[in-house]
Amino acid sequence: MDTNTPVEYDVFRLACPSREVFDRIGERWTALVLLALAQDTQRFSVLRRKIEGISQKMLTQTLRTLERDGLVARQAFATVPVTVEYSLTPLGRSLGEAVQTLRGWAYTHIDEITTAREAHDASPAPGSR
Amino acid sequence: MDTNTPVEYDVFRLACPSREVFDRIGERWTALVLLALAQDTQRFSVLRRKIEGISQKMLTQTLRTLERDGLVARQAFATVPVTVEYSLTPLGRSLGEAVQTLRGWAYTHIDEITTAREAHDASPAPGSR
Repeated sequence: MDTNTPVEYDVFRLACPSREVFDRIGERWTALVLLALAQDTQRFSVLRRKIEGISQKMLTQTLRTLERDGLVARQAFATVPVTVEYSLTPLGRSLGEAVQTLRGWAYTHIDEITTAREAHDASPAPGSR
Repeated sequence: MDTNTPVEYDVFRLACPSREVFDRIGERWTALVLLALAQDTQRFSVLRRKIEGISQKMLTQTLRTLERDGLVARQAFATVPVTVEYSLTPLGRSLGEAVQTLRGWAYTHIDEITTAREAHDASPAPGSR
């Protein structure tokens, strides 16, 4: 064994820290929150309205996780009631750019996916799956 | 209203077809299967061993969904037992590239995330969340 071989990350391995980050990005709401904040600093209530289908509980939980990961910054203002704003950190912005690439892919290729589904559903079921 | 305005996709809207595609990419195993197939055509058993933690049921379900979406091609050979190989279609390869960008982000920034978590967990809990 060459003990100088650097340890390499591998998202396929459960024990690799990169796997957890990769799974996190894939959590249901993470990517949408990053996209919503990519445009601008947002208040909680604005985020909740913008991201259709997200519950108050899930938005709170997603924002807390992203804050802990250093991807989102939270700023509270001493208004009545308290105003809380969320924004991407520089680290969050760099991840947001990769997620925007994925969104761009979805927008560009949605028609091809729809066509593939229609063709698949119209074809006879295969014998052995 | 300008009726010539093109309909624009919006992943934030539940009814937008792009939202479904975007959610799909974010499903737990989709991205890892795309990455595993980005390297080469693979047999089911090889995929299952490669992607640690995936169950036979989830791998089957993920591959079927990707096949229906036109992202993965399935080829069966009349051996005993039947050999089944999976590969990315050209559409799947283009999505695979965007997912590889995300993996690259995870590998590059895992240390920053770990550092942010440690700082977060070491700081006193804020009063008003």
